[in-house]
Amino acid sequence: MRHPIASIALTTLIAIPFSAQAQFAKVEDAVKYRQSVFSVMGTHMGRVGAVVKGERPYDKAAVEGDVAVIEMMSKLPWSAFPQGSDLQNSKAKPELWKEQDKFKAAAEKMQQEVAKLSTASKSGDLNAIKSAFGGVGQSCKNCHDNYRNK
Amino acid sequence: MRHPIASIALTTLIAIPFSAQAQFAKVEDAVKYRQSVFSVMGTHMGRVGAVVKGERPYDKAAVEGDVAVIEMMSKLPWSAFPQGSDLQNSKAKPELWKEQDKFKAAAEKMQQEVAKLSTASKSGDLNAIKSAFGGVGQSCKNCHDNYRNK
Repeated sequence: MRHPIASIALTTLIAIPFSAQAQFAKVEDAVKYRQSVFSVMGTHMGRVGAVVKGERPYDKAAVEGDVAVIEMMSKLPWSAFPQGSDLQNSKAKPELWKEQDKFKAAAEKMQQEVAKLSTASKSGDLNAIKSAFGGVGQSCKNCHDNYRNK
Repeated sequence: MRHPIASIALTTLIAIPFSAQAQFAKVEDAVKYRQSVFSVMGTHMGRVGAVVKGERPYDKAAVEGDVAVIEMMSKLPWSAFPQGSDLQNSKAKPELWKEQDKFKAAAEKMQQEVAKLSTASKSGDLNAIKSAFGGVGQSCKNCHDNYRNK
């Protein structure tokens, strides 16, 4: 079930068309792209997470740099889930394609949480960063629980 | 359609040190990270390349968005070539670690060429984009010829 108005609103928000199958010549390319994007995002989430957990000293510029990467990555993978891209090397669950509205909402939620983390990273307030980082982590988890196999 | 990706400031990333081996707990992580970064970069290079070759219509905002991703990616992989990360699943040649100065110069050259492409993408001059894209492609090729197995 598609809701065109909601799709338009989301497209405006994230700027890149949510569903843009034509951007990938093969579904394999889409899978590799989204996995690469999430991998880069995960590395930088891990670096901010280490600061949040006190395992690394807080360096404002470094965290801002990490969050800038996270923010850009947060906008990219959503066009890379075309129908038929639930390949063997993908952890995506079939539910992702059956619950497109719910998946889109989860994608949007994550980007909103990342935007908050971006604001916090620029403030230099480590407590604000910790709080916003928790929000991002929760939004990752929500989507993974519903749409990604372990 | 807006492309907020293009508006994300990249300047903060310049502070990321070229050689920061401690950023990766395992060399496997460094290999996966750099491969993911180059994969994302390659996808967006391909999209700009399609415009340059006339296979896709020129859309200024879309190209700016692609180039913003390319520019951010161009700054990231250089800390992910620690000594000992010439693993089996890596195409990096041993020369990369024997010619660190030359490799660094090639990495810097690529980033300079990408900066020119960024300027061209903002100008909206397709001929300037074509020229700058060629410079980026050449800088990729130079480094691949010397430091990457086919």
